[in-house]
Amino acid sequence: MRALLFLLPTLMAAQTTVKYHATINDVKYVYGQAAPVAHVKPGDVIETNTLDAFGNAIRKPGDKMSMVKGDNPLTGPFYIDGAQPGDTLAIKILDLQVDGTQGVGAFAPGFGALNQTNYTPMLHAPLPEKIWFYPIDKASNTATFKALDSNFSVKIPLHPFFGCIGVAPAGGEARSSVVPAEFGGNMDAPEASAGNTLYLPVNVAGALLYMGDGHAAMGDGEIAGTAIEVPLTARVQVNVIKGRKINWPRFENDASIMAVGAYRPLDDALRIAFTELVDWIHKDYGLSNLDAYELLSKVARIHLDEMVDPNYVVVASIDKKFLPPKKK
Amino acid sequence: MRALLFLLPTLMAAQTTVKYHATINDVKYVYGQAAPVAHVKPGDVIETNTLDAFGNAIRKPGDKMSMVKGDNPLTGPFYIDGAQPGDTLAIKILDLQVDGTQGVGAFAPGFGALNQTNYTPMLHAPLPEKIWFYPIDKASNTATFKALDSNFSVKIPLHPFFGCIGVAPAGGEARSSVVPAEFGGNMDAPEASAGNTLYLPVNVAGALLYMGDGHAAMGDGEIAGTAIEVPLTARVQVNVIKGRKINWPRFENDASIMAVGAYRPLDDALRIAFTELVDWIHKDYGLSNLDAYELLSKVARIHLDEMVDPNYVVVASIDKKFLPPKKK
Amino acid sequence: MRALLFLLPTLMAAQTTVKYHATINDVKYVYGQAAPVAHVKPGDVIETNTLDAFGNAIRKPGDKMSMVKGDNPLTGPFYIDGAQPGDTLAIKILDLQVDGTQGVGAFAPGFGALNQTNYTPMLHAPLPEKIWFYPIDKASNTATFKALDSNFSVKIPLHPFFGCIGVAPAGGEARSSVVPAEFGGNMDAPEASAGNTLYLPVNVAGALLYMGDGHAAMGDGEIAGTAIEVPLTARVQVNVIKGRKINWPRFENDASIMAVGAYRPLDDALRIAFTELVDWIHKDYGLSNLDAYELLSKVARIHLDEMVDPNYVVVASIDKKFLPPKKK
Amino acid sequence: MRALLFLLPTLMAAQTTVKYHATINDVKYVYGQAAPVAHVKPGDVIETNTLDAFGNAIRKPGDKMSMVKGDNPLTGPFYIDGAQPGDTLAIKILDLQVDGTQGVGAFAPGFGALNQTNYTPMLHAPLPEKIWFYPIDKASNTATFKALDSNFSVKIPLHPFFGCIGVAPAGGEARSSVVPAEFGGNMDAPEASAGNTLYLPVNVAGALLYMGDGHAAMGDGEIAGTAIEVPLTARVQVNVIKGRKINWPRFENDASIMAVGAYRPLDDALRIAFTELVDWIHKDYGLSNLDAYELLSKVARIHLDEMVDPNYVVVASIDKKFLPPKKK
Repeated sequence: MRALLFLLPTLMAAQTTVKYHATINDVKYVYGQAAPVAHVKPGDVIETNTLDAFGNAIRKPGDKMSMVKGDNPLTGPFYIDGAQPGDTLAIKILDLQVDGTQGVGAFAPGFGALNQTNYTPMLHAPLPEKIWFYPIDKASNTATFKALDSNFSVKIPLHPFFGCIGVAPAGGEARSSVVPAEFGGNMDAPEASAGNTLYLPVNVAGALLYMGDGHAAMGDGEIAGTAIEVPLTARVQVNVIKGRKINWPRFENDASIMAVGAYRPLDDALRIAFTELVDWIHKDYGLSNLDAYELLSKVARIHLDEMVDPNYVVVASIDKKFLPPKKK
Repeated sequence: MRALLFLLPTLMAAQTTVKYHATINDVKYVYGQAAPVAHVKPGDVIETNTLDAFGNAIRKPGDKMSMVKGDNPLTGPFYIDGAQPGDTLAIKILDLQVDGTQGVGAFAPGFGALNQTNYTPMLHAPLPEKIWFYPIDKASNTATFKALDSNFSVKIPLHPFFGCIGVAPAGGEARSSVVPAEFGGNMDAPEASAGNTLYLPVNVAGALLYMGDGHAAMGDGEIAGTAIEVPLTARVQVNVIKGRKINWPRFENDASIMAVGAYRPLDDALRIAFTELVDWIHKDYGLSNLDAYELLSKVARIHLDEMVDPNYVVVASIDKKFLPPKKK
Repeated sequence: MRALLFLLPTLMAAQTTVKYHATINDVKYVYGQAAPVAHVKPGDVIETNTLDAFGNAIRKPGDKMSMVKGDNPLTGPFYIDGAQPGDTLAIKILDLQVDGTQGVGAFAPGFGALNQTNYTPMLHAPLPEKIWFYPIDKASNTATFKALDSNFSVKIPLHPFFGCIGVAPAGGEARSSVVPAEFGGNMDAPEASAGNTLYLPVNVAGALLYMGDGHAAMGDGEIAGTAIEVPLTARVQVNVIKGRKINWPRFENDASIMAVGAYRPLDDALRIAFTELVDWIHKDYGLSNLDAYELLSKVARIHLDEMVDPNYVVVASIDKKFLPPKKK
Repeated sequence: MRALLFLLPTLMAAQTTVKYHATINDVKYVYGQAAPVAHVKPGDVIETNTLDAFGNAIRKPGDKMSMVKGDNPLTGPFYIDGAQPGDTLAIKILDLQVDGTQGVGAFAPGFGALNQTNYTPMLHAPLPEKIWFYPIDKASNTATFKALDSNFSVKIPLHPFFGCIGVAPAGGEARSSVVPAEFGGNMDAPEASAGNTLYLPVNVAGALLYMGDGHAAMGDGEIAGTAIEVPLTARVQVNVIKGRKINWPRFENDASIMAVGAYRPLDDALRIAFTELVDWIHKDYGLSNLDAYELLSKVARIHLDEMVDPNYVVVASIDKKFLPPKKK
């Protein structure tokens, strides 16, 4: 992945910050073609905000899931000037902050790894509707879990990230904001946090970038169906890698390269992530496919991001210290 | 899990070390009923060794997989005095050392996440047989990967663990040494390393403990089908928790509790691991099942150990710092 | 399912036949919002044609898959007057005929149950591109398979059906013509043949009905990725069941009711199909859910339509002779 | 599959009928090594009986599942003289009759496709324990379903078959009578009925044949976890095909050849069944693998036997009329 623009500070002279404030009146619920809320140039920084997964509708004890108008309202789309199908969009996440003093967890109907869902239906009575509120303390950088059935409470360190970040899909598709797929989307990936760069395939002119579903913290697998759901304020820098085509989302930071696979069962999500990672190592670092396969069997890391959305998400990664120097 | 014996050093006065040396002539290839190689008392330490997954048959370039007499030869069984069905066996792994100067990696026929296998068969020609040798350097505590198709090499830190550790199964079953299941077995769990305690259900009188398939290091998922396969020398301490029944293997150390799930697809392995972890938290730490489910959705960790054996293995864990005090 | 309109011949007085001829220039490749090619009223008959899955591009030995412009070109959409979200569209398939003298089978890249695909990727070399041509003989109502690697040939009885039939999805989504899902789509269901009625949820005003991907005959599972792919001429009658909402496609004929589930793994597709069928029996035939579950365990039929598209399709059915009289 | 012995009636002169009557006191609960209940020679007919899946313990309303001592008690093993590892055992099912006047259906804990089970665990309360009794009428050859929650009843045609039929596993394994796998076992295959021949791999000297778990009738998938469970009387003829090795069970009759795959998810069970069927066609009927793959995509039949046992069972078949003449 040639992220050359990040290495050329002189080009940053022209860097502009594009500010956009989202409200419940202009969010979207699909990744697809829509009128852009703003145009940005490669190298520009977007400063914006996102509503929480419930459109900020769940505020206090007694509020009901039925008050939620739509899941995962998205801020955007942002049109990236010059991005064309066949290019790769690079989104460097500069800063994410919880936009408020409270997070929400809930048994969202249809979601969850240990209960029946829309796509793993059974004949049991559903779990009862339950909502947990998580006070956010920015001084200690924690959220507090408070048990509903006992007096136990415990502080959880914050790790803010986008549950949703994606672009318009290929082939004229438009996809719900609850779905992760080739275009990114509801990946629920803690990798979508400050310090990391996300690469997404560009499928339409302008790429059309969307963000939402902020999480203050999340366990691996997001097994009950929600993280600590929060509104966010965000600063991200976008760039375009011309003529570089990828098939699935990828993350990168100084320490490692990370490939995303999204489908079900997890077996196939894992196969997607690892064949992408083998291909990445082969093309950018020069190992043969079979040497890469063997090396990953000895040093790979797997992050099982979520098993609750319509498609499940696995991230396969390798530390760069185990790789040859990147090819020029 | 009441691991009281570990807390009562005065009981350790009677601790004995039972030494047993395994060779290719007395290994086993199934977990099941067999004449014990030794009897040990609760609190005793077993000092023994294990052959590598290939029975130490692959030694040098030119050796072939066809030279392997059987996969995963097992040392044992050890009969634990007083262990009865319905008890739990606690195995504290005190020390594991690579027993040799070389490890082996290979495309083992029938194994692998990115190639057809016995249980995910396809119509492609199989991958070519390939074997990698990993020199072990104990001074630097590393093994060295050497690419076959280029000159690249890189050092990998050692993390020795048992790929196989298990007891005789329930219900009169006997299971192959390549299978992980309720009785433990070929879990390929890096958690089976020095400093951790493994809990296994006792299914037959004496439990009948087996160990083997040492790994010097392994990537998450063990995706090409092997780790850095090595013989090991081992010191483990065994104890019996009377009257405590568990359904699946569990690991524990000072920092966390870890529940194992093993089957396929990964989806179901994950469900097993997490329902076991919810149950563990409920019974030993007092949270309600639904509070535990919610809390895990915010702070759980998932380790995807392997997706290459007949059954796949997922470990779900939580840091103890996020839990209430353990119930007395 | 109250299909009252079919029972009231007097209403048929106003029946109109709407004719529409599709060509490669006006086919669509997504189920979604698009300008209708025709408006039809409930009770009307549509007479139209569909191109084959390859847009009729593969004609003779030597033709290449690279000549295919897009998979599964769709005829439509047809706007059904009065259909509104929350209604059910009933499509009675009156007649389907192969529109030509030849069918095509091929190893379509990315499809197949016994080879690596886009969503079950592996590191093997792909299967070689191969194309089989099937002469169609209308006198004997057969197609002829001719082996490529020997002289064997055999006649296969024709059973023409739509591989693709669906409506615009819910929630503003647009989905590729290779995907089956809640809106129908690429179900590759032999149930979509003359004599059966297909029920689809109406998600947008006018429903927007699409058809394509004709099959002259297909084995269960469509395991190599294609059926005998043919252009079709078709006559279907459409009706609207007002105020009746279904979640997934359903088929019905005089003998049986059939519920469709589509996702992966097959396990989840089966769960969808059967929970829908239990619900159908409960609501329309009055058995309790658990009595229906038990009865299906004794008399249900499962048709595994395909395991090769992005989502897999299972049809669960029960003969009406095993059901109580339908509720009024 | 050379079933020559069946074609040579003159050999039948030496045919003997071996009679054995099983009771609850001598049934087995694992497929594995055990003292034979009888020795039989190739060509002999076994006349025996099997208890139902509950050991005949559930007799009348008010009986509880807790009265069941063990699931799927097995009659056997029968030692087949001359059968050696690497041979194939051929079991021709001559006659099966319901041994009694009543069948039983139940929500067996841990089984079921639409409820949580031991291997797809969730956090829901389990389904309530419910038992249905099915009067058997031999005159009309039917069993009668009687709803528990309404007055509905309906007759179901009998189709008696063995839910369990298998041999000792390979590699020294012993497997529970609830598991289907390479050795046959709890396949819940309606194919195991009169008129069909079952082929099983011989893994130990004498093969060690077991039978049990009679079903009077069953729906595809056996989705609630039981069929109409009945004791059976049985007549089967056994033969040995020397030097012919198969990997998985197969069925055959005059009309078709049928290959069994057993594992989970269903995706992998299907892949096993079809790669075995492709191999069978290639070796015995001479089509190339890829021609066989293509042909099956056009004419194969899939029978999804069950998705409720620890491993799921798929049968893939082809009518012989679509095959070349069998190779000599």
